Amino acid sequence: MFFEGAEKKAQIQIDIQKISLLNDVNDQFWQALVQCCNAQILSSINNAQCKAFLLSESSLFVWHDRLLILTCGETQLVNSIEYFIQHIGKDTIQQLTYQRKNEYFAHAQPSCFNDDVKLLSQYLNGSVYRFGELDGHHNYLFNYDKNFNANPEDKSYEFLAYQISEKASALLTTSGISAKKIRQFLSLETILPDFTIDDFVFKPYGYSLNAIKDDKYLTVHITPQANSSYISFESNIDLIAFAPLFIDILQPLSFDILSFNEFEFSEKTSAYRKTNYVSKTLVKTTLSNGYKINFANFILPQVTFIEPIVLTLESEGIIGNKTL
Amino acid sequence: MFFEGAEKKAQIQIDIQKISLLNDVNDQFWQALVQCCNAQILSSINNAQCKAFLLSESSLFVWHDRLLILTCGETQLVNSIEYFIQHIGKDTIQQLTYQRKNEYFAHAQPSCFNDDVKLLSQYLNGSVYRFGELDGHHNYLFNYDKNFNANPEDKSYEFLAYQISEKASALLTTSGISAKKIRQFLSLETILPDFTIDDFVFKPYGYSLNAIKDDKYLTVHITPQANSSYISFESNIDLIAFAPLFIDILQPLSFDILSFNEFEFSEKTSAYRKTNYVSKTLVKTTLSNGYKINFANFILPQVTFIEPIVLTLESEGIIGNKTL
Repeated sequence: MFFEGAEKKAQIQIDIQKISLLNDVNDQFWQALVQCCNAQILSSINNAQCKAFLLSESSLFVWHDRLLILTCGETQLVNSIEYFIQHIGKDTIQQLTYQRKNEYFAHAQPSCFNDDVKLLSQYLNGSVYRFGELDGHHNYLFNYDKNFNANPEDKSYEFLAYQISEKASALLTTSGISAKKIRQFLSLETILPDFTIDDFVFKPYGYSLNAIKDDKYLTVHITPQANSSYISFESNIDLIAFAPLFIDILQPLSFDILSFNEFEFSEKTSAYRKTNYVSKTLVKTTLSNGYKINFANFILPQVTFIEPIVLTLESEGIIGNKTL
Repeated sequence: MFFEGAEKKAQIQIDIQKISLLNDVNDQFWQALVQCCNAQILSSINNAQCKAFLLSESSLFVWHDRLLILTCGETQLVNSIEYFIQHIGKDTIQQLTYQRKNEYFAHAQPSCFNDDVKLLSQYLNGSVYRFGELDGHHNYLFNYDKNFNANPEDKSYEFLAYQISEKASALLTTSGISAKKIRQFLSLETILPDFTIDDFVFKPYGYSLNAIKDDKYLTVHITPQANSSYISFESNIDLIAFAPLFIDILQPLSFDILSFNEFEFSEKTSAYRKTNYVSKTLVKTTLSNGYKINFANFILPQVTFIEPIVLTLESEGIIGNKTL
């Protein structure tokens, strides 16, 4: 069975003078927004500064002045963004970034990034970038902003692990594994003291976690199956600091680190990353609003030949299928 | 403008006792076969052992007992294979391999590999493999054979270069560049003495070459545009020996070497490849009929951050579009 773990992601910054997304918008609105991309709300947690929804495909976080939504699988996130623009109003939006990682079952997606940009461009006049070479890991980014300057303290991070070790994959696909066991395996309770946690183990496998504390958040999504494994961590706490721990636990063949407004990205990643990985891709830029973006992909050089994966028509999902 | 350079490829070995593909099959048949995948024959060359057709999307080679066809872009090669099976007959086929590289605009393809395997499986009961990790360069392979043992002397090679240097890309996208100039740039006339050559420069750019001598062949296909460049070499002469030359000329960020029946693949690639590249992927296997297959992807580790590619809606093709 295949599952497209790669997420689409949107961040929307709004004018707090006009509306508070926590005080003035009810759960029915978020439910409707999430349904627009064919996902469902499973549960939620909240504190005074943040509300976090666990979705059937990834997560939605809402702050007074900001929205962050990640959706994986075959969701069409751009439709949720359109819903937001139509209902909250274009004039309320100070910045909107829409990001899409290259997919591994792209033929099964309901739209490509270009289709999505065409839709967004009907509402917002943004800039479009590709971070990374076409034949490697890459991210497409659409950015719109209006009289908005980034706060240098507004940092966020992604750590994405691909092709984790056989041992990690075997444990995470254990039938009936508990959420607690997965949190322990990833040391999440150690690195998240005092966070409110909401997590879910999917059947037959797969795991999602939202964690919040004040305005801090971490979200983790696991697609554990061997031969197409993918684990994503996204947070506004410094994930570069935790990368060596995650790498030790997961032993991925490849990983990405992406950050917004981490000004010491180069120094931090060169100091902390394991020395047996090499950089395949290094990209950086500063958006017109001051946001600094860094993207790096690291791979583990191979020295031993391995056998190919043998596929069967019964395991057809592994190689992807338009009609699944 | 984007172009999917990555080829689909089929090799079919037939029972020479039953039919000679050179003597008993006419050009109208090949024309019809090629049209089945939405390509056209542009020109052809031949000698007593081989006939080579240059196609609007890549190449077709025919020997008495064998067929090799590569098609790129949005062609649906599996339809041409189905045509062959239906008209030449399943019982005549001793071996059929159908191979598909991971695509970079997969959403624009009329079918995915899984769809293709389903179609082939209506006729032939084959084995299916994936060479390489999902998140890196990989090849899907379908193999059918019947009472057929590989001849150890039957060797073939692919050398695939990705993200060539700015200089190489600029030269190869020069408006009005001649075929001769491209052959010189790639040193093809030096490495192909006494070969009969048939080549074509596409508008606005792109280049294809077929070269034959006795039963030897080389085919080269160039998608030169910066940010999505791809050059493929396929031959039954030893391309591992020429890889260092091509790497020097093209300076690719990444390259693949794939071989059938090269028994010293590991030694040859470790001795000849440039020492500043590292192996991201190493896969080998031996098919039930004795064919040994090796696949390796090499990348050039990066040390300097570069700016992202800026895309515009006008250049929408670069990011791919279902409706193009």
